[in-house]
Amino acid sequence: MQLVMIDDEIFDSKKVDSVYFDYGTFFGDGVYEVLRSYNGKLFALDEHLDRFKRSLAEIEIQGVDIETVRQRVLKAFEKYNALNAKIYFHITRGAGIRDHAAEGLEPRFFLIVSDIEDAGEQKKNGISVITVPDTRWKRCDIKSLNLLPNVLAKRAAHKRGCAEAVFVDDNGYITEGAASAFFAVFGNVLKTAPLSANILPSITRHFVLALAPKVGLKVQETQIKAEDATKADELLQAVSSKDVVPIVKFNEIQIADGKGGKYTKLLAKEFEKLVIEE
Amino acid sequence: MQLVMIDDEIFDSKKVDSVYFDYGTFFGDGVYEVLRSYNGKLFALDEHLDRFKRSLAEIEIQGVDIETVRQRVLKAFEKYNALNAKIYFHITRGAGIRDHAAEGLEPRFFLIVSDIEDAGEQKKNGISVITVPDTRWKRCDIKSLNLLPNVLAKRAAHKRGCAEAVFVDDNGYITEGAASAFFAVFGNVLKTAPLSANILPSITRHFVLALAPKVGLKVQETQIKAEDATKADELLQAVSSKDVVPIVKFNEIQIADGKGGKYTKLLAKEFEKLVIEE
Repeated sequence: MQLVMIDDEIFDSKKVDSVYFDYGTFFGDGVYEVLRSYNGKLFALDEHLDRFKRSLAEIEIQGVDIETVRQRVLKAFEKYNALNAKIYFHITRGAGIRDHAAEGLEPRFFLIVSDIEDAGEQKKNGISVITVPDTRWKRCDIKSLNLLPNVLAKRAAHKRGCAEAVFVDDNGYITEGAASAFFAVFGNVLKTAPLSANILPSITRHFVLALAPKVGLKVQETQIKAEDATKADELLQAVSSKDVVPIVKFNEIQIADGKGGKYTKLLAKEFEKLVIEE
Repeated sequence: MQLVMIDDEIFDSKKVDSVYFDYGTFFGDGVYEVLRSYNGKLFALDEHLDRFKRSLAEIEIQGVDIETVRQRVLKAFEKYNALNAKIYFHITRGAGIRDHAAEGLEPRFFLIVSDIEDAGEQKKNGISVITVPDTRWKRCDIKSLNLLPNVLAKRAAHKRGCAEAVFVDDNGYITEGAASAFFAVFGNVLKTAPLSANILPSITRHFVLALAPKVGLKVQETQIKAEDATKADELLQAVSSKDVVPIVKFNEIQIADGKGGKYTKLLAKEFEKLVIEE
């Protein structure tokens, strides 16, 4: 038998919703995705589903049919019926008695669809960021529910009046933002950290790199020292919910004229075209 | 407005239990403790509450009264009315719209009390362990809900027929088990990794070190190379739910005569006395 207590009340464990025994809460034992629509069309659903499938495989959650996930996402999006929606969904290993290595649980799906936050002001005027030490685990290529360091980083950024925190590894190199990919423009070269176990294979990053040649930028997937970032001509972040956003202050130092650079604007424009075409 | 989808069903977000919006699930944004009773008495409740308080502070969850937590633990234990019970409890930052850096959430308390698993066979015959790379984040001193690497490590151990996985850092040193502290006996010296941001300040570890002199062991808090562990006279693990358990196989290599050593047995006996006295 098990008793559970929720705040001050005690219940027989059989009487409470199984969600209270979700491995997502006990262990962060699950993976997630966030995607959005532009003007009534979901953007890059295939790419998000592919990454989700990989994340599930990496943490050995089996028995999930990705086509079922796709149908659920489409159904929720249709039902919500908004032009610009944000969809978050996760799958956890299941629910049951708390046991690190339980077998045979039934994976659990959960999704939220909501209006997308307006990022117009950030996209126009840019954001400020601070750096924080990258304390995350060594498999940040998996989009898992273990996000406490990201939460702590974001909280630190907000305390300093910044919209985002940028992780810096033990060697002084920028990995990525707490919830975004990071880029620097030097001359006509767009630099971003190469894909590795230490960064998420960001889908917006992928599209930004693909669009770069169209605006006259050469791409270099290379590590960027935090101390060199302030010397960049432009800094920018990429994130599914807002696509391209200029970074105009980095650790309180203004980047160039502090207004966001020309390539960042060109990339944002190309992104606008892309989401219509896609 | 928000819609949520649980498996195939769509709901207005206001109609589902707020637990579905728990930051414990979204981010692993919470901390926990596990303790047990021996013969009707909770063991080391003060120590667990102290550590819990520290964990809460480290992740900046505010407004939790530890005395309230104590009263809840005592109330659940009394209600459950078992001699040997296991109590798990956690507090998460709260529930709300998913936002890494939300402010003003109400922390949420959840507790499970159940019968303790019988560890008699493991304590008598010992367990086998494997090593796995320590991929965890850099604040393992915080007992947080970000436990995916621990889950993956335990799963790897079970696949190899082992009860526990032991983490080894990039330099080849053992940090701790996926859900236990790790010790090696060389001659009359008990070695375990020193406390740092890379290991949990295990309460059972604390008591084992305190008891060591009583059984004629000298304590050395020092790093142990994984490759040296198999040369130990004895290996053992310490964990709240089972206290002292011999490790008789390490990466498939038998330790000494494979039956658990004399100091391990003496420590287990001292622990038995301690839990009665406490």
